[in-house]
Amino acid sequence: MNTGELVELGQQLRVDSVRAAAAAGSGHPTSSMSAADLMAVLLARHFRYDFDRPDHPGNDRFVLSKGHASPLMYAAFKAAGAIDDEELLTFRKLGSRLEGHPTPRRLPWVETATGSLGQGLPVGAGIALAGKRLDRSGYRVWVMCGDSELAEGSVWEAAEHAAYENLDNLTVLVDVNRLGQRGPTRHGHDLDAYARRFEAFGWHAVEVDGHDVDAVDRAYGEAASTKGQPTVILARTLKGKGVEAVQDREGMHGKPLPEADEAIAELGGPRDLRVRVQEPPAGTPHAVPTGQAEPPRWEKGEEVATRNAFGEALTALGTARGDVVVLDGEVGDSTRAEFFAKEHPDRYVECYIAEQQLVATAVGTATRGWVPYAATFAAFLTRAHDFIRMAAVSGAGINLVGSHAGVAIGEDGPSQMGLEDLAMMRAVHGSTVLYPCDANQTARLVAAMADLDGIRYLRTSRGESPVIYGPGEEFPVGGSKVLRSSQQDRLTLLAAGVTVHEALAAADTLAGEGIAVRVIDLYSVKPVDRDTLRRAAEETGCLVTVEDHHPEGGLGDAVLDAFTDGRPVPRLVRLAVRTMPGSASPEEQLRAAGIDAESIAAAGRLLVEQAIVP
Amino acid sequence: MNTGELVELGQQLRVDSVRAAAAAGSGHPTSSMSAADLMAVLLARHFRYDFDRPDHPGNDRFVLSKGHASPLMYAAFKAAGAIDDEELLTFRKLGSRLEGHPTPRRLPWVETATGSLGQGLPVGAGIALAGKRLDRSGYRVWVMCGDSELAEGSVWEAAEHAAYENLDNLTVLVDVNRLGQRGPTRHGHDLDAYARRFEAFGWHAVEVDGHDVDAVDRAYGEAASTKGQPTVILARTLKGKGVEAVQDREGMHGKPLPEADEAIAELGGPRDLRVRVQEPPAGTPHAVPTGQAEPPRWEKGEEVATRNAFGEALTALGTARGDVVVLDGEVGDSTRAEFFAKEHPDRYVECYIAEQQLVATAVGTATRGWVPYAATFAAFLTRAHDFIRMAAVSGAGINLVGSHAGVAIGEDGPSQMGLEDLAMMRAVHGSTVLYPCDANQTARLVAAMADLDGIRYLRTSRGESPVIYGPGEEFPVGGSKVLRSSQQDRLTLLAAGVTVHEALAAADTLAGEGIAVRVIDLYSVKPVDRDTLRRAAEETGCLVTVEDHHPEGGLGDAVLDAFTDGRPVPRLVRLAVRTMPGSASPEEQLRAAGIDAESIAAAGRLLVEQAIVP
Repeated sequence: MNTGELVELGQQLRVDSVRAAAAAGSGHPTSSMSAADLMAVLLARHFRYDFDRPDHPGNDRFVLSKGHASPLMYAAFKAAGAIDDEELLTFRKLGSRLEGHPTPRRLPWVETATGSLGQGLPVGAGIALAGKRLDRSGYRVWVMCGDSELAEGSVWEAAEHAAYENLDNLTVLVDVNRLGQRGPTRHGHDLDAYARRFEAFGWHAVEVDGHDVDAVDRAYGEAASTKGQPTVILARTLKGKGVEAVQDREGMHGKPLPEADEAIAELGGPRDLRVRVQEPPAGTPHAVPTGQAEPPRWEKGEEVATRNAFGEALTALGTARGDVVVLDGEVGDSTRAEFFAKEHPDRYVECYIAEQQLVATAVGTATRGWVPYAATFAAFLTRAHDFIRMAAVSGAGINLVGSHAGVAIGEDGPSQMGLEDLAMMRAVHGSTVLYPCDANQTARLVAAMADLDGIRYLRTSRGESPVIYGPGEEFPVGGSKVLRSSQQDRLTLLAAGVTVHEALAAADTLAGEGIAVRVIDLYSVKPVDRDTLRRAAEETGCLVTVEDHHPEGGLGDAVLDAFTDGRPVPRLVRLAVRTMPGSASPEEQLRAAGIDAESIAAAGRLLVEQAIVP
Repeated sequence: MNTGELVELGQQLRVDSVRAAAAAGSGHPTSSMSAADLMAVLLARHFRYDFDRPDHPGNDRFVLSKGHASPLMYAAFKAAGAIDDEELLTFRKLGSRLEGHPTPRRLPWVETATGSLGQGLPVGAGIALAGKRLDRSGYRVWVMCGDSELAEGSVWEAAEHAAYENLDNLTVLVDVNRLGQRGPTRHGHDLDAYARRFEAFGWHAVEVDGHDVDAVDRAYGEAASTKGQPTVILARTLKGKGVEAVQDREGMHGKPLPEADEAIAELGGPRDLRVRVQEPPAGTPHAVPTGQAEPPRWEKGEEVATRNAFGEALTALGTARGDVVVLDGEVGDSTRAEFFAKEHPDRYVECYIAEQQLVATAVGTATRGWVPYAATFAAFLTRAHDFIRMAAVSGAGINLVGSHAGVAIGEDGPSQMGLEDLAMMRAVHGSTVLYPCDANQTARLVAAMADLDGIRYLRTSRGESPVIYGPGEEFPVGGSKVLRSSQQDRLTLLAAGVTVHEALAAADTLAGEGIAVRVIDLYSVKPVDRDTLRRAAEETGCLVTVEDHHPEGGLGDAVLDAFTDGRPVPRLVRLAVRTMPGSASPEEQLRAAGIDAESIAAAGRLLVEQAIVP
């Protein structure tokens, strides 16, 4: 396409954005119009993509970080022939693939769900890292950001990460239209302000008039030819460009144009230009060598921390499966992820203390078919909660591992204790939550989670605990293990992780007092083993849940989930961490929280005696 | 103190850090030793503080962002005479005030809990903002950071925020000791790399040898005299400085020194220098003018969005109470926080799209006695989860408001829907969670939450809903409202927010079929009204919970919480959002999720007929 055609294509994308939002009665046409020329030049001159084969290994990747500008993206899909005009006008309607904010669940040409600002660049950096270090393929990653979202810290985690990793296959287009949702941004049209920041972080920065298609074209070429560092293209644009009534005006964010027909006329009316998008270079899917590896095994009675078992199992899994990638948040010596680094340094990525980038790298590499395990302290995964939430919206398949769970870590105190992580991870749509109590169980679950869908979470513990399962034991996801059981059971103790060992000791105590107690290890917190729970309820009548977690959203709630379909519910007591811990030894912490063997035995005794029922 | 004495004081702080960690058998002496000279000079020459009056309004404020270097902080407290040597050696022991990571719950000289890296600067910026814009007092805020934590995006949200707000009362000391937990940082001792970044963000940067006490002294003076911008002091230091066996060596993070006695000897042995810390300038507590304001009121039957009621009530509260401050995450036009801005612009802070800084500003201003309300979309509060968690560790009293809750927002789709926020906020220790369904209720709760302890969360809705309560109605926190009730009730519907209106419609439908149904509005999700729930269970036998939230951790679990002490549990059905929504109208969304009136009636009918009990 020549200059005149590019200008026309930009106008077409504007018109189609206005039409889509008008048909929907909502949406963000003005945010689409500012970036239309950036999109036109990209699509017609630089993007290499086969819309018939979105999984083509040589395809460039495009991420619309400013996901609210979805009309622009859909208008581009139409210009590329991927959707037709009729579908364009289904925008934001029930059942349409064209959602308010794009998601890969519905559209094959969308890499990652956006709409929570500041996530496109981190995930794009993750894809670019996959291209550079894992796929070792020539595809380029293009991320389109708004200017407002550069206030998000996650953008600067990504900026640091991408420059440090020399991701010269990554280009960020910033649509600097000066106006955020509620008014001007901090820096308005001061492109230099943004350039200084990116350059300080090690990027190549190009400033350009975002409505001069030839200048934009040159900028893209400069980005593609820049070696050794990522490029940011800072484009001066006008929000609502092309329609006088809204152009560069405040108060026009996120609403259809007031007079759509007039606006379309002002833009020169509808067009039907078709873009022949460049073919991607020939590419082959990344090779995934597999090897033979004995999974680690431990003998009953050994004392092993589940975090250590995780590190060893992950290392073996990495030998067996060449698609496993491990990501560290600068705590690999604590989570034991670094065991993997020693064996498979080429598939180990240090993300430093930047948990949002840690999870975004997982999402980005997963889009390219890798199987990422991202590990940090359970407590610090809360830092990436919004990324985990959005990963679920994407339908991404990622493994998250949180170590140092609960008060059982001991002296470090509450800042380092994961006490909300089960609640956070259970509430994620479609998630799996696993919490092993011994080394062999951990090893099995580490391998099993690789093949699940969606967000999979493994919670590990800092301290050593006895191996109670043989190395041959199976632990299906959604299952549980009945560790003590008899016909005389009058009570069931439900535990996971460190509390399994406390529950076993409590059961022994109660047995000594003539109270037969069932003990169930609920290593699969979500999905939970409903059948076994229901049977225990029927046979023993009452339940005690014990968890090293706050009372809300964790194991106790998971157990009750088996009884929320209208069936009779057993009587239940929930033991959990209800106070704010300080520093103390692990044993003192469990006691102070009332989740040690003695507290469990006391609660069980009371419940059996019905002493606490009025 | 002269140069020689400052050097000695630095050594004393090292020795005491080594001694404390040795006594505890854990802790981070090497991370304390690198920053000892920075601390010595600050304490003896620049910090203005009355340790007998930690609430003195003129006091400078110190935040140890690298909270793991707590031995250094405690050694400084000892040098200042605030604690004695005996207490120093209780470090990390059960019941000690000297926790592994410092918290203001236990020590009055600690401003905010740290230990999750990258939070000290954001909170410090919040305190500095309070000093500059609210207290209008001359105190200075000193934040000590590690170099590793500069990888956290939250640091750059704060850097941007502090420079934009011209916080020249803020100084950040970065202890650039080159070594993170598991090895070298990205930039090692390249101070220029950090200086470039901070300068690009608008800071004054000073590079210094962090072990040259005179140079450090000059740097602090330069910081104090810099006007119009915050200052960062980048100090080149050595981890473990002064003890050959550990100095500048990898693998020495987070553990006591191998040979403590030898190390102490190498450092010149114990000392007992006492520092006379400078008196703070005379100061008076900030004036909090109060005024008269009619709280807003609506008549029954009006259609009002609870987010609008929030905005209006907050504005009136701001007139009545001069200590109320409102913080916006660049969505004030959507949350309606901007109503407040129009009346009280001096107490409205635009935090732009930076939710971590939004919450950190709340925590920072709260430490100075202000009553902050921080508002953004409920979905985007997940971005600040770790800050909320740490605010609870601090015992901070802050108000968080999440708008656009649930699928009821309609077309925008899942990225904008708060569907995990109740789970997140309920699992925070000591939190209060409120979810109003009408305008008058919202207004009462907005005012009531100001006086509660801890983290208080208000969930608001985007769309209009009918006013069902009169303006005089009271809504105690921990209470509920029984909206339909009779002796014949065979079922109780439990709802909050948008589902209250659906539940009322369902109750009408069922009443028409001869099934009397109780309806309870659980506007106080935490604490939940246990007595009313238990009565409803006893009197009606079965419960249906209905929530615009994922099934985990929300209203359904809150209801069950009333029955986890061993008492008989009613039969229960939980209706919640179990699928991943797309775009659709609000009504279509409620129906698709199975939480509209029709779905509720169907579930109630089934439960009463016991059809779904096997």
